[in-house]
Amino acid sequence: MNDLFKPDGDYEERVRASFDRQEVMDTLGAELTSVTPGIVEIELDYKTSLTQQHGYLHAGVISTALDSACGYAAYSLMPADAAVLTIEFKVNLLSPGKGERFLFRGSVTKPGRTIIVADGQAYALDGDTNPKLVATMTATIMVVAGREGIRG
Amino acid sequence: MNDLFKPDGDYEERVRASFDRQEVMDTLGAELTSVTPGIVEIELDYKTSLTQQHGYLHAGVISTALDSACGYAAYSLMPADAAVLTIEFKVNLLSPGKGERFLFRGSVTKPGRTIIVADGQAYALDGDTNPKLVATMTATIMVVAGREGIRG
Amino acid sequence: MNDLFKPDGDYEERVRASFDRQEVMDTLGAELTSVTPGIVEIELDYKTSLTQQHGYLHAGVISTALDSACGYAAYSLMPADAAVLTIEFKVNLLSPGKGERFLFRGSVTKPGRTIIVADGQAYALDGDTNPKLVATMTATIMVVAGREGIRG
Amino acid sequence: MNDLFKPDGDYEERVRASFDRQEVMDTLGAELTSVTPGIVEIELDYKTSLTQQHGYLHAGVISTALDSACGYAAYSLMPADAAVLTIEFKVNLLSPGKGERFLFRGSVTKPGRTIIVADGQAYALDGDTNPKLVATMTATIMVVAGREGIRG
Repeated sequence: MNDLFKPDGDYEERVRASFDRQEVMDTLGAELTSVTPGIVEIELDYKTSLTQQHGYLHAGVISTALDSACGYAAYSLMPADAAVLTIEFKVNLLSPGKGERFLFRGSVTKPGRTIIVADGQAYALDGDTNPKLVATMTATIMVVAGREGIRG
Repeated sequence: MNDLFKPDGDYEERVRASFDRQEVMDTLGAELTSVTPGIVEIELDYKTSLTQQHGYLHAGVISTALDSACGYAAYSLMPADAAVLTIEFKVNLLSPGKGERFLFRGSVTKPGRTIIVADGQAYALDGDTNPKLVATMTATIMVVAGREGIRG
Repeated sequence: MNDLFKPDGDYEERVRASFDRQEVMDTLGAELTSVTPGIVEIELDYKTSLTQQHGYLHAGVISTALDSACGYAAYSLMPADAAVLTIEFKVNLLSPGKGERFLFRGSVTKPGRTIIVADGQAYALDGDTNPKLVATMTATIMVVAGREGIRG
Repeated sequence: MNDLFKPDGDYEERVRASFDRQEVMDTLGAELTSVTPGIVEIELDYKTSLTQQHGYLHAGVISTALDSACGYAAYSLMPADAAVLTIEFKVNLLSPGKGERFLFRGSVTKPGRTIIVADGQAYALDGDTNPKLVATMTATIMVVAGREGIRG
């Protein structure tokens, strides 16, 4: 671990405050369940209001939660006055989004001063069975510094 | 245009029926505004319930609508008894999701019997100004045939 | 077209000089056949030394030429003292790399001061038949300014 | 590990035979250094004939070797009579391709009967220092069965 993996001040408070401002997380019923330097987890319960045509969690909902998990994993390593901006991401849908609850983990693969790359995994949780990997994401995230009025 | 661009029977009815079963589209307030062979458009109004931390449309919401637009563009060219499955997609976020309303267009770039590739564009619409390109998607979609109980 | 599409000084000379320093282009037999602001074309002849196991052009060779085409399309719009850096790209392989000659076109979709997004198409050329689209790329490119000793 | 991770017969011989038919591997000086079920490694030495404009290994060369590593990782798990086809991949370039030698590892993340997803890492090796991660790939690969004359 090098310096770029060392968080600046109260990173958890900053991540939580920014997450709380993402109103779509509330719309999806998503909760921020873990924040450590460079790794963030989000969870949500299955709801029919989030489904695609076969009754599974829509790939876009999976992407929304993975994007926030990857973005906040990156943000947790940014300077306190920076803002986080996703430039692009790719998602592979490995299995149908079938489960009672879903866990989305984002982790920083490559920290950086301007560009951060994070990878994410989405797991379906179903009773006592093992978590099932349903999707992966690779996201490229930008550290936005010094833009008036843009923070978090 | 070759045979793979010729739709099978009442493609529009099939696309509309499947879209209506995607409950997340209702949650987002998304409407299916245009269905032609290989090209599908979806629109939605800006709502604070869909925002990220700076008050813009969340990249995941943009991806959700683009995924459905690309998926249905592909589905419009599939045999009547097939089901549509997104294997993977990549999204580039070009500008903040700032606007009154958003238009998502998916078009088939490469039709196929098993794999279809579609590209999508998301535009922000704001009063009388020109539509602004805010995101692009490339999606790889699979034609799922002959699976009991899976249609649409 | 806005200011970000206006090239700075002799962009063509800069692109050609940088391309000439890419020794791998020589190894592939690739030629820079067109340079206009935001659009660059590269061509190469089929050679068995560039093939995959079925005798077609290897997807990686297609990606190499597309990456250079997209990178130089972006570079053509950068300030004269900047350097070009590909952050990431995605390639979709639409048809086998079968042909006598191949054309790779990169065009800037979204110019920018720090991040530029370019899209590319690879075409197989075969005698008198129409060019066939064999692959597409989306590339995210960074404008690197003010780094000692890094130019082009 | 489930059945889809069990190789069919002499997978290593099949992978090596197919790799040997990829003439571009010879052009790059790439060697197949490890083949186990679902994981394949390729290595190559730095050569100026493979460089981009700053003298580093060209991103396209990195992609070529990663694509073969991921493709053969997938192929090692396919039925003996199948052929391997890359549908698409995404590469993130994390650090310049600077080193004496490079190692490319492809591993299957999700096996499947029709679609296999593999992830790859490229490392720069430089004397006694630790391997440095320079790029990652996610590749979507298709199992092509029953096509006359296409194998490997």
